[in-house]
Amino acid sequence: MSGAGASQDSGVRLGIIAGGGSLPFEVAKAAQEAGHRPFVIALAGNAGKDIEQFPHAYIGVGQIGRMLRLLRREKCSAIVIVGSLRRPNLLRLKFDSGFVWNLPTLLRLMKGGDDSLMRRIARFFEERGFELRASHDFAPNLLAPAGIFSRAKPSPEAMGDIKLGFQVAKALGAFDIGQAVVVAQNYVLAVEAAEGTDAMIARCGPLNKWGVKEKRGVLVKAPKPGQDMRLDLPAIGPKTVELAAASSLAGIAVQAHQVLLADQAALVEKADSLGLFLYGARADEF
Amino acid sequence: MSGAGASQDSGVRLGIIAGGGSLPFEVAKAAQEAGHRPFVIALAGNAGKDIEQFPHAYIGVGQIGRMLRLLRREKCSAIVIVGSLRRPNLLRLKFDSGFVWNLPTLLRLMKGGDDSLMRRIARFFEERGFELRASHDFAPNLLAPAGIFSRAKPSPEAMGDIKLGFQVAKALGAFDIGQAVVVAQNYVLAVEAAEGTDAMIARCGPLNKWGVKEKRGVLVKAPKPGQDMRLDLPAIGPKTVELAAASSLAGIAVQAHQVLLADQAALVEKADSLGLFLYGARADEF
Repeated sequence: MSGAGASQDSGVRLGIIAGGGSLPFEVAKAAQEAGHRPFVIALAGNAGKDIEQFPHAYIGVGQIGRMLRLLRREKCSAIVIVGSLRRPNLLRLKFDSGFVWNLPTLLRLMKGGDDSLMRRIARFFEERGFELRASHDFAPNLLAPAGIFSRAKPSPEAMGDIKLGFQVAKALGAFDIGQAVVVAQNYVLAVEAAEGTDAMIARCGPLNKWGVKEKRGVLVKAPKPGQDMRLDLPAIGPKTVELAAASSLAGIAVQAHQVLLADQAALVEKADSLGLFLYGARADEF
Repeated sequence: MSGAGASQDSGVRLGIIAGGGSLPFEVAKAAQEAGHRPFVIALAGNAGKDIEQFPHAYIGVGQIGRMLRLLRREKCSAIVIVGSLRRPNLLRLKFDSGFVWNLPTLLRLMKGGDDSLMRRIARFFEERGFELRASHDFAPNLLAPAGIFSRAKPSPEAMGDIKLGFQVAKALGAFDIGQAVVVAQNYVLAVEAAEGTDAMIARCGPLNKWGVKEKRGVLVKAPKPGQDMRLDLPAIGPKTVELAAASSLAGIAVQAHQVLLADQAALVEKADSLGLFLYGARADEF
């Protein structure tokens, strides 16, 4: 399980700041199997119960002071941030004094597009002495492979849709917008911005079904051009496949080695049982 | 009411192929006032009752043969196509023999993005001897003016959002995608593809409301770069303003002279009563 990044480290005390979904558990498990010592800082209301199998503590999203104290107490030399995060309702957040001290910085963090937010979060930790790392440095097997990784194969028409999808994603990358597009029969059905991939796929159902029964159309998901690979990598999981099937899509294409696969075995099994293809496009392919 | 385009014509027998909304009626009225003789071909299930004030006939969306016969019988030398069109359910369409004869052409029309579809529709009519004209040739007052045309004025922050919105719309234009974007606080909330502007605005409500009460964010609507101005010009109307207000947006910006205003008096009144700004950006402004 140990990859290029992890093999250079030995026995790192790794702080895992854990959002929702299965990825935080998978990263902690892979890191432990590679000889590291994970400590999970679980974001309450987001992180799943499974992370409790590792040394851990819960914090609220507003408890920046507590988070920094925990990272110091546990002598974490590196940290990763992984998992989904519900956009906080600012009126309901519980703030600690660390939050208040860091408030000017945090307010600056909130303005502007997603990607620059990510870069500023990275700098925030680095200025406080923690090395921010990519979760796939410790769990390289979570990255999507190149080529077809399902039983179903993309048709020539689907390959055309995939190409158009990556072109649209690339054009949008300059604007810090979402990382996903749905294309069917050379027609862009939906573009993700702030609503998230799941909501975007869901609205494609009625748009994709005018009078035909066969599956068609592709979800394309890619990182932004120049994206900081340590933070907020796009991810797909079994639920993504279910939603794509419910909207009658023929398959999913991701950028190989730059998109995370959550719960990979279940994801592939789901795609195979529903007849969808899974495709990892190489960076130079489109 | 007569503008540059209309003044070159006198007493044109004008075939108005009418979809939904108030624009077909407004075009017919303006054309009649300018001395032309409109004949409305109303698309059943789309066109409103108000067009019955003019000489008219109803056709089904699949009745291409009947439409061409009517245009010839009425000796229409020019036609305009205006109004919204529900995407037809192919299984429920009633076809006539004209549809079947033209089927190979029509099937080619259905493939590919919106804008090339429009160009091919124009060619379809021109090859059959009808000059396709822009509806604003006959009703120039329907085009959005330049500058602020509401009581409320865009804030400097809103002007920044407008600029980003036009940049995104421009980047997407190359892909025949929708013509609208919502930006709030320098963050792209939503991008329109196949779902239509109304659905896109509606989903911005929850995305735009995390814990604040003041209005913010802008709907930006523009034609595609290089768009055929005779067909499918973007439009806004009173309902657009209502939806924008319901999603807590501060205003609406359109490309001046390239976006149609449906029911303009009611639109401006609605914006003024709800406190939204309306802004027409010049082509060289952003």
